[in-house]
Amino acid sequence: MSELDQVLSHLDANLDAAVERLFALLRLQSISTDPAYKAECVKTAEHLRADVASIGFEASVRPTKGHPVVMGHAKHKGNGGKRPHLLFYGHYDVQPVDPLSLWHSPPFEPRIAEVEPGRKAILARGACDDKGQAMTFIEACRAWKAVTGSLPVDITLLVEGEEECGSINLPAFVEANKAELKADAALVCDTGMWDRSTPAITSTLRGMVYEEVKIKAADRDLHSGIFGGAAANPINVLTRILGGLRNEEGRILLPGFYEGVHETPSQLKADWAALKLTPEQFLGQVGLSLPVGEKGRELIEMIQSRPTCDINGIWGGYTGEGSKTVIPSEASAKVSFRLVGDQDPKKIAASFEKFIRDRLPADCKAAFIHHTNSRALELPADSPLLMKAREALLSEWGKAPVTIGSGGSVPIVGDFKRMLGIDSLLVGFGLDDDRVHSPNEKYDMSSFQHGMRSWARILGALAS
Amino acid sequence: MSELDQVLSHLDANLDAAVERLFALLRLQSISTDPAYKAECVKTAEHLRADVASIGFEASVRPTKGHPVVMGHAKHKGNGGKRPHLLFYGHYDVQPVDPLSLWHSPPFEPRIAEVEPGRKAILARGACDDKGQAMTFIEACRAWKAVTGSLPVDITLLVEGEEECGSINLPAFVEANKAELKADAALVCDTGMWDRSTPAITSTLRGMVYEEVKIKAADRDLHSGIFGGAAANPINVLTRILGGLRNEEGRILLPGFYEGVHETPSQLKADWAALKLTPEQFLGQVGLSLPVGEKGRELIEMIQSRPTCDINGIWGGYTGEGSKTVIPSEASAKVSFRLVGDQDPKKIAASFEKFIRDRLPADCKAAFIHHTNSRALELPADSPLLMKAREALLSEWGKAPVTIGSGGSVPIVGDFKRMLGIDSLLVGFGLDDDRVHSPNEKYDMSSFQHGMRSWARILGALAS
Repeated sequence: MSELDQVLSHLDANLDAAVERLFALLRLQSISTDPAYKAECVKTAEHLRADVASIGFEASVRPTKGHPVVMGHAKHKGNGGKRPHLLFYGHYDVQPVDPLSLWHSPPFEPRIAEVEPGRKAILARGACDDKGQAMTFIEACRAWKAVTGSLPVDITLLVEGEEECGSINLPAFVEANKAELKADAALVCDTGMWDRSTPAITSTLRGMVYEEVKIKAADRDLHSGIFGGAAANPINVLTRILGGLRNEEGRILLPGFYEGVHETPSQLKADWAALKLTPEQFLGQVGLSLPVGEKGRELIEMIQSRPTCDINGIWGGYTGEGSKTVIPSEASAKVSFRLVGDQDPKKIAASFEKFIRDRLPADCKAAFIHHTNSRALELPADSPLLMKAREALLSEWGKAPVTIGSGGSVPIVGDFKRMLGIDSLLVGFGLDDDRVHSPNEKYDMSSFQHGMRSWARILGALAS
Repeated sequence: MSELDQVLSHLDANLDAAVERLFALLRLQSISTDPAYKAECVKTAEHLRADVASIGFEASVRPTKGHPVVMGHAKHKGNGGKRPHLLFYGHYDVQPVDPLSLWHSPPFEPRIAEVEPGRKAILARGACDDKGQAMTFIEACRAWKAVTGSLPVDITLLVEGEEECGSINLPAFVEANKAELKADAALVCDTGMWDRSTPAITSTLRGMVYEEVKIKAADRDLHSGIFGGAAANPINVLTRILGGLRNEEGRILLPGFYEGVHETPSQLKADWAALKLTPEQFLGQVGLSLPVGEKGRELIEMIQSRPTCDINGIWGGYTGEGSKTVIPSEASAKVSFRLVGDQDPKKIAASFEKFIRDRLPADCKAAFIHHTNSRALELPADSPLLMKAREALLSEWGKAPVTIGSGGSVPIVGDFKRMLGIDSLLVGFGLDDDRVHSPNEKYDMSSFQHGMRSWARILGALAS
């Protein structure tokens, strides 16, 4: 029996104890956004520190301006530092629980329930996000240590307590502790599976340019009865310009926009084709049916590997009930572009600004606010990290993992890239129906058990 | 000396008495919008009734659901009803006076002051709007009566007390008294001059179609990180469609939109050309310089005789501070078209709706609110009413009147057309610097004196 098989057997044999340890963590009310739970957050950090110390991590609770961070180091001594070194990220804080009346049982009294025949889940605030997920990794470490006496790779743990309130103190912490956090790559367990039987690796994060533009015309609001037909109307101007951002084929018309957008690798295309994700399935859930991206692209490419342009907000003139014949003095919009590959956010922000200015009547003005500006992040398709994780997940689930992009932002991944110069592998076992951030949050027992086993396999794979 | 010359001399000789009568009217605090002045409005109506009765009008104060209307009839008996019959419209109510602290003298204590060397004006709330203007007509009638013993035409007076709060009860009053109000045409004195030395006739009123459209896409707000690139964004859709309402030449692209738009008559074009109204003059006052109407048209045509398309309001998505990566479920806009000539508002509203629906993605919906729907009103360039008034004003001012269109709505004119089937001639002597609705409202003595003389001439001209 290989070491890995022994580790997996150990996990299965000790499942109840692992659930008990997760329950102990779930009982701690670490609501980070509510100051009333400050002491509970410290207690949770201390609890975690003690737990990972028991596995052999050199662990400490480290202060920040907000809730503390738990750090742990497990480094093999004496082989000249040649082993791979991974930085694991998770968070111990949870969302508030209101409205409490909608919970079927108290949110901080974890229990196991059958959510449908033959399908058991752990119910509690944080069961999935992110206590359950973080514990899949920690339990995998514990099992390796129990079976082999050590971990197969060097590991630094970073478990923060402010993810649910924006990780406001984490970038400064990472910056201040760069040397200590330095590793070969990061592992993050805070994402989901494709579906209940299909694991997923989030290997790309779309970047973003988020711009706000205000068009100014006359120096006051005008009466359209007097000035209508002669005076520039900033809403007319704004709609005409923004209406020209994309052509009939769904292509975005900012000059230079597609520079650095790479063709989707054929492996990824094949993976995605196998998913048979139809517009009916994906868009049908929100009452739509027609993908709006570039003609000739598959739906999944549109949401994963192609850049976008969305107007997220627009306002100007009279917006109350009834009618008012005003030509307003200004009109505004918020416009965002999600970026992929090597698109340069600065160039795109500049191209957007020029696109507007080039089309502006000479007696109007435009003012800009630059809200966000981040590059896409991508694990190359041939990255050993990605390939080893794929193999490990395939072995565990009997099904190749889907390699997906995340549109939602995971800022820590950008921080790791920028401050530590390392890529991140995002693997998680959440499901769409986990009610994360809502009452009756749950984590499938299958996610927990196979999640632990998955990490055990990934750690083994990364060691070789 | 002709009868008219005698009437004009009588007006000049009795100017002081006319000013005294206007002062008496101005002392009455007929603020219609404030219930505290209800009794004062009744008193003002009663005062006016008595005044016009003293000229020989069969006069009465008539109740409405709000402030009363003053009605007066002066009909020549015994010639078989062959004389022209004019309906005069004015209003005795005034705007509130706040902020009182900005008035240089009490608003209801009229006085004459020199506003610049050699230029005298009457100062009081209502001095121009509309007590002073209405009295120019009534004094002209008084002078005709004094000199000749009768009026040269049959006249019905209609002076309401709710114009400053939207004339809410007037349409019902007109409808209920159609037979009594029936006349050949209406005369309205509530408009302005072109400038201090140039009289003006307002002969066209642009009509209006005012539509509100809401584009609905997904059945909930979406996260652009998940759905961006695939899901229809109603703001993108709205801006693309509305941005296509006009082409680069300023032409409005709704099918059939220009049906019924007539070429500006050459007489009018000549009049307008003589005014030499430059974009710098007209748009410069509000910080603009470039007319946005149809290429090849003069500025004055754009604001007087050509139809328009203005987006008066737009809203959707996130409009607060900062950024939010939402794809909203809906986006809305208010869009108005000012109409001229024989443009059919119903057809244009339908064409707008079709324009939107034709361009809507099949999985989006559009909902419409029809706010306003009124035809343009126009005195034909060869109307005898218009031609006689032109001659009369030319004689009085030594300068041909400018025939202009009003963009602002004068709803009573539409009511007269619709309910009584008659055209309206709008002549008034207000000036741009009269501070109507503001503190220190004034009416130039020149406007008052030449206004009275102008109406005396017009009445004489209409008799022939």
